[in-house]
Amino acid sequence: MSATPLVVSVPEPEYAQALGDLDGLDVVVWDMEQPHPRGAEIRLAVVPYMTKLRLADVVEGLEALEVVQLQSAGYEQFVDGLPDGVTLCNAAGVHDASTAELALTLTLASIRDIPEFVAAQARSRWEPLRLRTALADRRVLVLGYGQIGRAIAGRFAPFEVSLTAVASRARDGDELVPRVHGIDELPELLPHHDVVVVIVPLTDATRGLLDAAMLGRMPDGALLVNVARGPVVDTQALVAECASGRLRAALDVTDPEPLPADHPLWTTPGVLVTPHVGGATDAMRPRAMALVRRQVEAVLAGQPVGNAVAGPLSHAGR
Amino acid sequence: MSATPLVVSVPEPEYAQALGDLDGLDVVVWDMEQPHPRGAEIRLAVVPYMTKLRLADVVEGLEALEVVQLQSAGYEQFVDGLPDGVTLCNAAGVHDASTAELALTLTLASIRDIPEFVAAQARSRWEPLRLRTALADRRVLVLGYGQIGRAIAGRFAPFEVSLTAVASRARDGDELVPRVHGIDELPELLPHHDVVVVIVPLTDATRGLLDAAMLGRMPDGALLVNVARGPVVDTQALVAECASGRLRAALDVTDPEPLPADHPLWTTPGVLVTPHVGGATDAMRPRAMALVRRQVEAVLAGQPVGNAVAGPLSHAGR
Repeated sequence: MSATPLVVSVPEPEYAQALGDLDGLDVVVWDMEQPHPRGAEIRLAVVPYMTKLRLADVVEGLEALEVVQLQSAGYEQFVDGLPDGVTLCNAAGVHDASTAELALTLTLASIRDIPEFVAAQARSRWEPLRLRTALADRRVLVLGYGQIGRAIAGRFAPFEVSLTAVASRARDGDELVPRVHGIDELPELLPHHDVVVVIVPLTDATRGLLDAAMLGRMPDGALLVNVARGPVVDTQALVAECASGRLRAALDVTDPEPLPADHPLWTTPGVLVTPHVGGATDAMRPRAMALVRRQVEAVLAGQPVGNAVAGPLSHAGR
Repeated sequence: MSATPLVVSVPEPEYAQALGDLDGLDVVVWDMEQPHPRGAEIRLAVVPYMTKLRLADVVEGLEALEVVQLQSAGYEQFVDGLPDGVTLCNAAGVHDASTAELALTLTLASIRDIPEFVAAQARSRWEPLRLRTALADRRVLVLGYGQIGRAIAGRFAPFEVSLTAVASRARDGDELVPRVHGIDELPELLPHHDVVVVIVPLTDATRGLLDAAMLGRMPDGALLVNVARGPVVDTQALVAECASGRLRAALDVTDPEPLPADHPLWTTPGVLVTPHVGGATDAMRPRAMALVRRQVEAVLAGQPVGNAVAGPLSHAGR
């Protein structure tokens, strides 16, 4: 067999090394900033991470292009400019470990008073001993039970907590929860949970989901953790609940984003803010490489690629 | 059967409630600050948590006393003044969940840059996006593999890390690690681990265990987490390794303790300090109550109490 090799572009040399043992492959390293001399041969192109590239500026002359592989879960900025017949694939799954890990980090840092201790350390002050709060025995509700929601629940499981999962529709449980509750049950569930971790996608149905009424159903002292998207929570209502000392919050995502310097969230007591760092860690690289490898193997085998979000192989295109 | 009821003193009314359904029991609430009118009848006495009481000041007139139950794992301050024939029991196990949880909190907070974000929040500053570190894929070594060490390893397990356990002697593994390494293997293991969590007891053998030579074997960028006792680590050597930017540290325990305001640990880059808060959380209370209940049930059944650390029922007393 001496078929024409599959030409794949990758944004960094490490990706080429990770594909080096595959037969029938010709890998070129291309950051997409300038046209590539072999652009016309590229059939699968991997887009750099954290890029502001517009696809329309890149695809000129890519006559053989079949698949564009992103390294982010979000893909909205790339749908415009996708040529006819080209499939766009996102990187769903690649950031799960990192995002789930941050959900635990935010929960534990808040409950175990890390912001207070960091501030005390800045003043070289050893805080006096008193009984503090722990995560153990808390009732944790994971709101959004897709792949990342399950990854979050799995990390909470050994902490001697009780776990409740809520998804858009009720369904059977898994090894972590006896049952997945439907979103319609959320109002009755909230009063019975000490920690609510939000990981729903932002849609018309979830925008403003945690509004003043829903937040008002959380019990005194409860913690809201948001690793989803800022607009899922009514920021003004959350600021009011935290300013009164009734709720606490740990937020990797805010509305708006970035948070302007004069925004009240920065200074509201009991609020911990991280600047949308959920997925952007070195955990993504090996997982992105593994995804690229699976996609390349699919194309080599004449199978459909996974994670298609637009174009002929996506749900919308089928 | 109308035997004389077992008189038990507990430091807070909640403990009495938790024992309320047991037959043959007479529970008195006593904080040990003043002599108790029924002191001469008390056979099992539960000492308050976080007390500076000396047992010698308390036991005067406790003629029926058989068992003193502490709520801390440490018991050194109570050995002096223990009357002949009285068994002293510590609260080993009661603080495991809280301490293990703090080990994860310190690890995650350090690796996910929470101190940096808390400082940025204090300046209302949204840090620009860059690729950061994650816990996932890190090689974690748990140094000390007793009850708390296993609780720590169990909490690390779902984070997609590799786990190594080291104890005083090599032995077979468990569901978390294929093998428990002996302490003699530590020098060869350290260069291959990104996170070292210290949870060994402080003994002559472990004092200064993490000295300049051992710390020097940790790889560049590695994180040392200490939830054991401060003197297990050579503080001066650790400060030097962190000041140079080679290692990072997250310490719930220090040497000395409390850390004086002018101590370099407060201001060394990459060092996060919490003021020995590992066990002092609300997770301890239900676990302490469960321990007291087990002990009371043992005495009622004529069985030996558990957790004996001094006196006739302890290893030393047998």
